[in-house]
Amino acid sequence: MNIRTDLAMEAYEFLTETADEIAGIEVKEEQINDTKITRVEVETKDAAEKLGKPVGNYVTVEIEDVSIMDSGKMEELCRLLAKEIKALGNIKEDSSVMVIGLGNRNITPDALGPEVISCLMVTRHMLRYMPEQMPEGIRSVCAISPGVLGITGIETEEIVRGVTEKIKPDLVICIDALAARSIKRISRTIQLCDVGIAPGAGVGNKRRALNGETLGVPVIAIGVPTVIDAATITSDSLLAVTDSLKKSAKQGGEFYKMLSDINEDEQLSLIKEALYMSNNNFIVTPKDVDMMIEKAAKIVANGINFALHENISLEDIEMYVG
Amino acid sequence: MNIRTDLAMEAYEFLTETADEIAGIEVKEEQINDTKITRVEVETKDAAEKLGKPVGNYVTVEIEDVSIMDSGKMEELCRLLAKEIKALGNIKEDSSVMVIGLGNRNITPDALGPEVISCLMVTRHMLRYMPEQMPEGIRSVCAISPGVLGITGIETEEIVRGVTEKIKPDLVICIDALAARSIKRISRTIQLCDVGIAPGAGVGNKRRALNGETLGVPVIAIGVPTVIDAATITSDSLLAVTDSLKKSAKQGGEFYKMLSDINEDEQLSLIKEALYMSNNNFIVTPKDVDMMIEKAAKIVANGINFALHENISLEDIEMYVG
Amino acid sequence: MNIRTDLAMEAYEFLTETADEIAGIEVKEEQINDTKITRVEVETKDAAEKLGKPVGNYVTVEIEDVSIMDSGKMEELCRLLAKEIKALGNIKEDSSVMVIGLGNRNITPDALGPEVISCLMVTRHMLRYMPEQMPEGIRSVCAISPGVLGITGIETEEIVRGVTEKIKPDLVICIDALAARSIKRISRTIQLCDVGIAPGAGVGNKRRALNGETLGVPVIAIGVPTVIDAATITSDSLLAVTDSLKKSAKQGGEFYKMLSDINEDEQLSLIKEALYMSNNNFIVTPKDVDMMIEKAAKIVANGINFALHENISLEDIEMYVG
Amino acid sequence: MNIRTDLAMEAYEFLTETADEIAGIEVKEEQINDTKITRVEVETKDAAEKLGKPVGNYVTVEIEDVSIMDSGKMEELCRLLAKEIKALGNIKEDSSVMVIGLGNRNITPDALGPEVISCLMVTRHMLRYMPEQMPEGIRSVCAISPGVLGITGIETEEIVRGVTEKIKPDLVICIDALAARSIKRISRTIQLCDVGIAPGAGVGNKRRALNGETLGVPVIAIGVPTVIDAATITSDSLLAVTDSLKKSAKQGGEFYKMLSDINEDEQLSLIKEALYMSNNNFIVTPKDVDMMIEKAAKIVANGINFALHENISLEDIEMYVG
Repeated sequence: MNIRTDLAMEAYEFLTETADEIAGIEVKEEQINDTKITRVEVETKDAAEKLGKPVGNYVTVEIEDVSIMDSGKMEELCRLLAKEIKALGNIKEDSSVMVIGLGNRNITPDALGPEVISCLMVTRHMLRYMPEQMPEGIRSVCAISPGVLGITGIETEEIVRGVTEKIKPDLVICIDALAARSIKRISRTIQLCDVGIAPGAGVGNKRRALNGETLGVPVIAIGVPTVIDAATITSDSLLAVTDSLKKSAKQGGEFYKMLSDINEDEQLSLIKEALYMSNNNFIVTPKDVDMMIEKAAKIVANGINFALHENISLEDIEMYVG
Repeated sequence: MNIRTDLAMEAYEFLTETADEIAGIEVKEEQINDTKITRVEVETKDAAEKLGKPVGNYVTVEIEDVSIMDSGKMEELCRLLAKEIKALGNIKEDSSVMVIGLGNRNITPDALGPEVISCLMVTRHMLRYMPEQMPEGIRSVCAISPGVLGITGIETEEIVRGVTEKIKPDLVICIDALAARSIKRISRTIQLCDVGIAPGAGVGNKRRALNGETLGVPVIAIGVPTVIDAATITSDSLLAVTDSLKKSAKQGGEFYKMLSDINEDEQLSLIKEALYMSNNNFIVTPKDVDMMIEKAAKIVANGINFALHENISLEDIEMYVG
Repeated sequence: MNIRTDLAMEAYEFLTETADEIAGIEVKEEQINDTKITRVEVETKDAAEKLGKPVGNYVTVEIEDVSIMDSGKMEELCRLLAKEIKALGNIKEDSSVMVIGLGNRNITPDALGPEVISCLMVTRHMLRYMPEQMPEGIRSVCAISPGVLGITGIETEEIVRGVTEKIKPDLVICIDALAARSIKRISRTIQLCDVGIAPGAGVGNKRRALNGETLGVPVIAIGVPTVIDAATITSDSLLAVTDSLKKSAKQGGEFYKMLSDINEDEQLSLIKEALYMSNNNFIVTPKDVDMMIEKAAKIVANGINFALHENISLEDIEMYVG
Repeated sequence: MNIRTDLAMEAYEFLTETADEIAGIEVKEEQINDTKITRVEVETKDAAEKLGKPVGNYVTVEIEDVSIMDSGKMEELCRLLAKEIKALGNIKEDSSVMVIGLGNRNITPDALGPEVISCLMVTRHMLRYMPEQMPEGIRSVCAISPGVLGITGIETEEIVRGVTEKIKPDLVICIDALAARSIKRISRTIQLCDVGIAPGAGVGNKRRALNGETLGVPVIAIGVPTVIDAATITSDSLLAVTDSLKKSAKQGGEFYKMLSDINEDEQLSLIKEALYMSNNNFIVTPKDVDMMIEKAAKIVANGINFALHENISLEDIEMYVG
């Protein structure tokens, strides 16, 4: 069964559609004003396999649509993100951090990572070359956008590992655009986790993991869903309709039986064929994805800026980043 | 019944799924190597109403996927387009032409029009200020990208009408990104027609028509499908599956009856609700839409360049356009 | 004598280097915190000819370098600009305004006009189609970026005139990137005037005037210097050095005489030859001109937004413009 | 004495203005149709110090203005570049190569490096994952754009060294935008050398060397001049004028003496003060630098493509790069 989502929370929702509870998965919810935080803890290998996500902590922040958020609410959200980042990344007073902007800057819905990098308060060079001019509370932050395999010819993991070994940061934060299963997640969800980036995740193709094991330092990942696979969405719409038909059919009748017999995987391949989707290259995305990416990148970047530098304001960031 | 496509050919296919032939609509097909040309002539008001497209001529050129087309085939295709443009626009030796690049340059799948403008051999000013330096066979061509209502606050039709009255060209050619119904049309179809741009067509919102009546000069339109409405595609996938189920159900049985009872419009609203698509702002598009738009724009622009300037080569255009 | 500047104030400074005062030109200065406002009134045709600028009012606002301005000062400056725009444009409660973004969006230092348009609160369509939803104090604003002659084949003035005749606004505001004579003006000066755009002004080539006479409605222009002609700057540096040499030379000596004999025009052609500048296509500009244009565009746009809409905040604009 | 040029050839011309020949520097010229090739070999440390360039080989290719070059001449030039790259880089049948695109993609005249990367035929991943599908003669090529210190917080040299150690290519090719001294070099010169990138070179700030010593593999560098420092150009124009004045002055007279006494460094600081150039942030560049960079990038990239892959055509590259 292929649930085709990068969100642990969606994968969990899918699992629990038919089961009440999954052993080894702890879920807690918290509401702060308009924002809902769901913490999914995957505790056992067994649970991880069921969920299709590695053992670890996943924090999902559900927000208003970013494209209609005012700047007051945006700052509030960034401060909240900062708190989660600090906790998840175990940020200490003298932690040095390297941020990795994953994805292809030339494919708009995949450009979240590189966009975030361009909004960061990068300080490592200044702390090195003019430490006396830097105020207290500024941590050492550096950042790269390694590009994607199709353009560099190099696995992202090889580039990041090479640079990490030279820089030796205390923490790596990976940023990536995610694929969701449901349209209601697009531009309304931010996922943070402490398991890094799993193989095959994201909009583009990244084969090898970026995590504590491969990089030798703790890795947290922050992602925002920007697309849904076109085949997934049509398959889900089918489910929605057959479910609604089932409700009105006589239990035990021929119709109910046939509907129940419809195998999801058969459906998907049928749809793919019907829609000429053999190359898997079609996505569902908001019409104004360019603007959505820009706003989401600013929110994620400022969450990181607030988390890594103490006592700074949005104005300080604006002056610094330009 | 809402067929949600800008392609006359798709609308015709949809109509003839249940009927054999439509009175007042003439269809002719022609195959030239890998390229298939379908000419749909809508002859009567009655047929126009059925089809949802104005009376006039629609030429659909079906091609290989532009993203894998080599430059030899591309030139061949541009020469073929030029021939169709010349015929449809009734281009004479001394015709002067104004090209309108419709759409929003900041929303990638809507940017076809502005992109085409930037690849055109625009000559009107040179023929005016240095006619002796221009070779024979170069016609007067000018071009504007009027922007979209949300950014200008002005109906596209008002801007185009204002400029047309000043310039008084013999022909207006409108370029626009189109919405199709089927994924197989995306980046594989070019539609030319002599009815201009009908109200509500295109990816963005354009309320008023650009045609011979509103502009006072003949108008042809050239479009390439770049997106499918997300609700449309899911609705179509449902149809595909229910059709396949119907085939295996007993005629006259409960199941067959229920499937036949499923009303397409009900389905669509059900899906929209299920998928949180109430705002209609989600589209299906290729992941690499940026590159697709760039290639499609070059093909359309060179079709126009070859149609409006005699004896020029791709090299001449490259030197001129830069 | 060619002073090669779009700034009336620089032209005036140049004139008064050798003369004390020019009949028919009134100059007043005002200091508001860090901002200096110079008002130049050209009262007679004679003075206009001497200055090389049409009869009218020129307001020059000299500011801190925009690239290091914090957001508090930026809002203050925008409010000040708004006041000047309202006065110069004689904005009434029910004035409708069309803003024209001149320049080529593909040549960074010439892209100020199109950039300003993309930051404007455009309202004309909303006041037309949903007047009841618009708050009080919102005036009708529309906007176009007509492109440049080399890309459209149409004189900017023809496009603007065509659209103006359709829209019939009460006032036209033209935005353009300017050429200055001195580096100290770049990104530190904003010029407003009520004479429109004179022929040949700006970075690009615009042959015909946009003013009350050609458009039939009052026209004000707002510009920011973004470049200096490379030949101008070298010529000016020569003057600076020869002036300093003159000071140390014996009056009446051979050296003094020769220095005095150096004709500015001869120098210029000598330099152009020496520097292979025959094509006049080299400019002096800040290395970070992309960022400078972005900031300057935001300042000018918000000055216009504050001038044309009552009781709005920067937050309102941000929500509206996105 | 600061000659402020990244071109060894300009540095050499400057040295030989006053001296006939420099010991330890060998210069050979070759003319191939419209293209002039100058080979400067710096043989001794002594000569290197005089020239301000490391010991090694510098090949300067002088061409027609790239902005008016037709595609036939462009291919010819790329083939010629390929030959020089093969010789300088000692390319063997099985050499693997990593290309580094230096510079800031957001500052147009500094974006040559990243632009070249986007036009390269990158093959390393395909040779790894589907070797059987690759034709003969295709070498392993990978590429990165490491960004600049101000954006990453990491010295370019640290990033490149980290990745080089992981990838272990046989050769590194660095691409960079250069600063020239004379306007006639801009967009008409390509410099290749086998000394890598020296500290402080380029438009941006790169403090540490990328060469055989720091990277542990041979490094060649390819650069195109895109800017001139604004202070340099004004200083040079002064020299041009004073030289011309000297010629007409009486030898031994007061004037001649004073002219001869003008110290170049004094002039430069005088000019910088006079022109408010204290921050060194003004550059001289062609107005259409965006287009110039695009064309130069394509030429350099195709030179590399032809050098590293045998028996390929421009069409093959176009199909591959897209």
